[in-house]
Amino acid sequence: MEQKRTDIRIIKSKESIEKAFLELLKEKDFDSITVKELLANARINKATFYKYYQDKYDLAHILCQEFMDEYVILLNRRQNYSSSNELPIVINNIYRFMFEKRELLTSLLKIHTDDIHLYDDMQCVLKNIYIMMNHNLLKKHGKDLELCAHIFSSTILSLLEYMYNNNELLEYEHIISCLNLIFKSNLIIN
Amino acid sequence: MEQKRTDIRIIKSKESIEKAFLELLKEKDFDSITVKELLANARINKATFYKYYQDKYDLAHILCQEFMDEYVILLNRRQNYSSSNELPIVINNIYRFMFEKRELLTSLLKIHTDDIHLYDDMQCVLKNIYIMMNHNLLKKHGKDLELCAHIFSSTILSLLEYMYNNNELLEYEHIISCLNLIFKSNLIIN
Repeated sequence: MEQKRTDIRIIKSKESIEKAFLELLKEKDFDSITVKELLANARINKATFYKYYQDKYDLAHILCQEFMDEYVILLNRRQNYSSSNELPIVINNIYRFMFEKRELLTSLLKIHTDDIHLYDDMQCVLKNIYIMMNHNLLKKHGKDLELCAHIFSSTILSLLEYMYNNNELLEYEHIISCLNLIFKSNLIIN
Repeated sequence: MEQKRTDIRIIKSKESIEKAFLELLKEKDFDSITVKELLANARINKATFYKYYQDKYDLAHILCQEFMDEYVILLNRRQNYSSSNELPIVINNIYRFMFEKRELLTSLLKIHTDDIHLYDDMQCVLKNIYIMMNHNLLKKHGKDLELCAHIFSSTILSLLEYMYNNNELLEYEHIISCLNLIFKSNLIIN
């Protein structure tokens, strides 16, 4: 019982810190955020903060990592549904998840340090999954797998960017019909 | 004759300043570049610099504007060749131009201030041209023109990113065959 109460206290402290951090990231650059103002906004004392995080970089890094862990699980699950009728449902779930995370992601994507580069991490995972899924087919076609993976991952990330900029949840059918119109109808060529 | 000599002197001074600026941008952030070190690297005196530019922001802004002017002319020319057999040649010329500008663009794209945002400017021009070219067709299909323009412009910019990252000139045929493979063969759906 005592242990459980402690656990809840830890979760609540961490939540307050994360919430205050994301609020600050809306207002100012990561570079100019100090742990001091973070503590003031989160109403958390210094000792509590440093119990869980080394500094603001560590906090940002952990938040990115937690997101990436969830993202990879979702993308891997999608991979198993590649030739299933349920693929649209699985993909819509990913878009819904990404849309729900828009505040977190918009904030985290603003941070650029040598160690924190969420956009690049997401693109890297998307590329790897694309290559894994299409390796044989692309080898057969003799295409440049790297270039295909780059275009594919950039397209997926541009859809996210669109969702966040327009605050609009995109759905599978809508995306596919736009992609078909752009690329299948030769608009890109004409 | 005297006038001509003065003109050449002006061009040479500006070239030295631009060259030193781009060299500095390779090594460090725009934020941390000072006019003082720019002058030292360009071997130009203070008075000469301030004859042509208000400050480093003005210099960056002018370089972006000069590039955008050329870019818009090229894209407009492409528009006129939409249904021509020469389209591949016109598009290859654009890619060659962009590839030749890779040092300039890689440096300028790193600068982000309230007034300097080259990536967004390029995306904006690409979107507008796409909308202008496909307005009627897309209206007929009832598609989301904004979303199509966003995906199209992001794809074009991702191709540039690929060229610059890999230091590899992409050609029309190669790009089209990759796009066909990704989007026509339903790889994105399967």
